[in-house]
Amino acid sequence: MTPLPVAVALVHYPVLDRRGDIVTTAVTNLDLHDIARSGRTFGIERFYVVTPIAEQQGLMNRLLDHWQQGHGASYNPDRKAALQLVEMAPSLEEALTRWQGDNPGTQVLPLLTAAGRTDGLPFFEARKLRSEAALLIVLGTGSGLAPELFVRDWPVLQAIHGAGNYNHLSVRAAAAIIFDRLLGHP
Amino acid sequence: MTPLPVAVALVHYPVLDRRGDIVTTAVTNLDLHDIARSGRTFGIERFYVVTPIAEQQGLMNRLLDHWQQGHGASYNPDRKAALQLVEMAPSLEEALTRWQGDNPGTQVLPLLTAAGRTDGLPFFEARKLRSEAALLIVLGTGSGLAPELFVRDWPVLQAIHGAGNYNHLSVRAAAAIIFDRLLGHP
Repeated sequence: MTPLPVAVALVHYPVLDRRGDIVTTAVTNLDLHDIARSGRTFGIERFYVVTPIAEQQGLMNRLLDHWQQGHGASYNPDRKAALQLVEMAPSLEEALTRWQGDNPGTQVLPLLTAAGRTDGLPFFEARKLRSEAALLIVLGTGSGLAPELFVRDWPVLQAIHGAGNYNHLSVRAAAAIIFDRLLGHP
Repeated sequence: MTPLPVAVALVHYPVLDRRGDIVTTAVTNLDLHDIARSGRTFGIERFYVVTPIAEQQGLMNRLLDHWQQGHGASYNPDRKAALQLVEMAPSLEEALTRWQGDNPGTQVLPLLTAAGRTDGLPFFEARKLRSEAALLIVLGTGSGLAPELFVRDWPVLQAIHGAGNYNHLSVRAAAAIIFDRLLGHP
């Protein structure tokens, strides 16, 4: 079957901090650029940057204007192509609603990620989901997505394993590996 | 055969800029953190940060002290474990000499990377090299490693392919995918 479109969401709330408290992290310019470039490379169609903080949405929208339509767009067309994927969204629910709007008549499905989950869906199984639903890969900032997102029967991707027990990838590195494993040519 | 140790070098000179001129790029704190964390996750034993600029070596060594031995080490032990891999080196030659010193009696071999090379060594072939030599994966900043590095009969890794012709991964994202493909459990 033909794979359906895939989107990604980078969640800044609700996420955990290092102590396990639920917080809102700050949106960083670099996460947007890195994950947009990786997403564009692997054919991702939309990149929702989720933050409830209006000031951060406004700031990021001004930066995006620069790269999508302003001087940056003509200076660096490759960056424009990547950042055209990016949309600010106030909540994961809103991102999911918009992604459904982009894919009328198709099931959309969040695919959660968690660095600590050894019981998650193996990558080869998650690849199969691509022909069943338009996936929204959900990445957490800080110390990961808050527990409240894991009680909604959404599938959870298996954590990335490296060579040992150490597993402290940046969200930028994790995103790149997840896109490669799910969307790259095997 | 048992895989031999693997190191990585992040080269800031000689590299190309967007116009194709040979330049020295600035070392960024974030590249060090991201690539060190990815390297540590995938069992890489050494991360050489190559710059000929003494001021940048000094600045980075002060930052590394903070994480390797200072307040950062106790505040964030995971970050310490990652940044303990990092060594500043004035040239790729020097990094290679030190890597040979860490692996006496073993062949050491640079493995070059290039986003534009479609004729490079496929990843499954490069994995086999791990039992023949202690590899030094060589990553370029800017717009990639300078041509002078490609005339020394060092193997070149195939470029990462995504879903189409767009291929503008950040060096942080490329490093993560390369480590996963070469060193991750298949």
